[in-house]
Amino acid sequence: MKNIYILGAAGSIGRQTLEVLKENQNAFHLIGISLGNSHQLNHEILNHFSVELVCLRDSSNLRDYENKYPNIKFVIGDSGLIRLAEYPKPGILVNALSGSAGLKPTVAAIRSGKDIALANKETLVMAGEIVNQLVKEYQVKLYPIDSEHSALWQVLNGEELSSVKKIVITASGGAFRNLSREALSQVTKKDALMHPNWQMGDKITIDSATMMNKGLEVIEAHHLFGLPYDQIETILHQESMVHGLIYFIDGTIKASLSISDMKIPIAYALFYPERRAYERHLELTNLSFKPMDFQRFPLLELAYQVGKKGGLLPTVMNAANEIAVKLFLTDQISFLEIENIVIQTVNKFKNIDHPSLDQIIETDDYIQEMIRKTYEKR
Amino acid sequence: MKNIYILGAAGSIGRQTLEVLKENQNAFHLIGISLGNSHQLNHEILNHFSVELVCLRDSSNLRDYENKYPNIKFVIGDSGLIRLAEYPKPGILVNALSGSAGLKPTVAAIRSGKDIALANKETLVMAGEIVNQLVKEYQVKLYPIDSEHSALWQVLNGEELSSVKKIVITASGGAFRNLSREALSQVTKKDALMHPNWQMGDKITIDSATMMNKGLEVIEAHHLFGLPYDQIETILHQESMVHGLIYFIDGTIKASLSISDMKIPIAYALFYPERRAYERHLELTNLSFKPMDFQRFPLLELAYQVGKKGGLLPTVMNAANEIAVKLFLTDQISFLEIENIVIQTVNKFKNIDHPSLDQIIETDDYIQEMIRKTYEKR
Repeated sequence: MKNIYILGAAGSIGRQTLEVLKENQNAFHLIGISLGNSHQLNHEILNHFSVELVCLRDSSNLRDYENKYPNIKFVIGDSGLIRLAEYPKPGILVNALSGSAGLKPTVAAIRSGKDIALANKETLVMAGEIVNQLVKEYQVKLYPIDSEHSALWQVLNGEELSSVKKIVITASGGAFRNLSREALSQVTKKDALMHPNWQMGDKITIDSATMMNKGLEVIEAHHLFGLPYDQIETILHQESMVHGLIYFIDGTIKASLSISDMKIPIAYALFYPERRAYERHLELTNLSFKPMDFQRFPLLELAYQVGKKGGLLPTVMNAANEIAVKLFLTDQISFLEIENIVIQTVNKFKNIDHPSLDQIIETDDYIQEMIRKTYEKR
Repeated sequence: MKNIYILGAAGSIGRQTLEVLKENQNAFHLIGISLGNSHQLNHEILNHFSVELVCLRDSSNLRDYENKYPNIKFVIGDSGLIRLAEYPKPGILVNALSGSAGLKPTVAAIRSGKDIALANKETLVMAGEIVNQLVKEYQVKLYPIDSEHSALWQVLNGEELSSVKKIVITASGGAFRNLSREALSQVTKKDALMHPNWQMGDKITIDSATMMNKGLEVIEAHHLFGLPYDQIETILHQESMVHGLIYFIDGTIKASLSISDMKIPIAYALFYPERRAYERHLELTNLSFKPMDFQRFPLLELAYQVGKKGGLLPTVMNAANEIAVKLFLTDQISFLEIENIVIQTVNKFKNIDHPSLDQIIETDDYIQEMIRKTYEKR
């Protein structure tokens, strides 16, 4: 039995991770989880899994939880996430938190010797170099859970990185893939949340529509696989069946395909190096591919520039995008303003090389706060 | 430097193997080759490569060759192929012979401790169990050169066979893929030799059009990968870009793609476990897949039945097909008669289990001779 921790257990990836655990009860022991704001969902989870430690968002209903689950230890908020990450039992920590909040708990978990199954892109986008250094220092494993990175990881099985010519991440194109840039000025939040292929959280669904998601994935892939940006490409593939391809130097391409079901990459990371049996399989039909259109998706081009420059810029880009998406989801800005905010924020920022973890976290806070204030004033 | 032997160096696969050697002169030392009937081609090869041993088809021009190449030892015919296979220097023997003639030299090479890079499907179709036993006994390696089997082998890199749900071999559909069975009664030899995607030898091009080729590949895959027939499927894929796919038990599919260029699988086998740099890469475009049509291609269905029954039946099917294709290529029978001859011959044959190598070779001779005589009489 492997010990499992889940940060963000009530979110989209978190719930699907819980499903994988339910389907494989004899393989895993769920030790600790962090929950969200829906008490109903929280109770459903706690009634099903007997965990040792639970992190709640805030202390408002702490007494109720403590009375109902006397055998569980409860911790609260950001400091609670750290205590969860540092809990002194070895295991795999699934980081399914959304946004920059995922970075600190990842670092804490690595320092306490846990392996990481990473769905939180921001961890590597903001602090890839530092996290890779810590992974090496504490000799833990870092497994990707993103479908694209899981696909690439699987294709790299048994292959040498020196034989890789380039890796290719596929992009469905998101909710607005059939709209021109002109048409984007009219789109609504409801439109943006209708992803054609995947059921995902709101943030990542918007990031799919702006292609920022693919930009974050490119930076994540750079840190995960140790490849320079000119060996990382993206391609439009509207069926979302092929998740990643690797071109080898000898002319061979290997690809990984599956249905759009996050339980597949989640289970792959948790069971690694084994594969668990799962009944949902892809029916192979026609697959289409189109070159990426950087004019149509300027945030993806920005991500390449930002990734190459490094330093604090990926944090700045991510922070600006994170708050801009929040503003869009609360109807405070239009869809195209997301792009404007991210691009202008990055362009104005004076970068520094090799920032510390504290500088990264402070910059993230600072950028998000600054943009929030600017747009609240309006 | 790896020592290389090539059986069938003047054939399609043989010449492409020689090109790989030319492009990588410092990696390989060509020791011995067997040549064909074109003296011009033979001299071109011998002028370029300084080999130690050459097998000629017959002795008619032996003196000329011996005078022109005093440093080369010449051997002749079938016995010469065996002497080549047994030549006492270790190395990889590329078996690019066409047809059942490939079996005996493969066995001789294994017994003399050579690794085998196998383009000759018949070796495994006729004697898969015996050859696998010998490979184990003499602790040599057996690498596939067929594009489909190379693709599957590459996809299996770093994976466990126990995680495989099924393997899928792609089929372009051959020269007549757009014709109904009715239209097949009208086709000519010239039509049949026009393969839409691959430049190959005549025999395999006809086998593509009848789908016998895919049947032989299914049986070959069974022996190469040790999978039962119900875990081996075929799929129509007219672009010939994806050569093989593996469905894993967890819902993941991994595929291997490349342009239609046999130098890629040849180089993969010769350089294994490394990959050599090669400049020809696939431009990813749309890929289409259709379920295999067994009514349309009865020889493929026959191959599954024959493979499952085993014994001498695969040899009988292969022998009947081999002579039938020869009769078609010499304008003695029509295209659809190939199928009839193969099906009737298999249906009439009384099978035995676990035949010896001698029984296999005798049966191959007997079936080919019997059919040849029957159709010569007409």
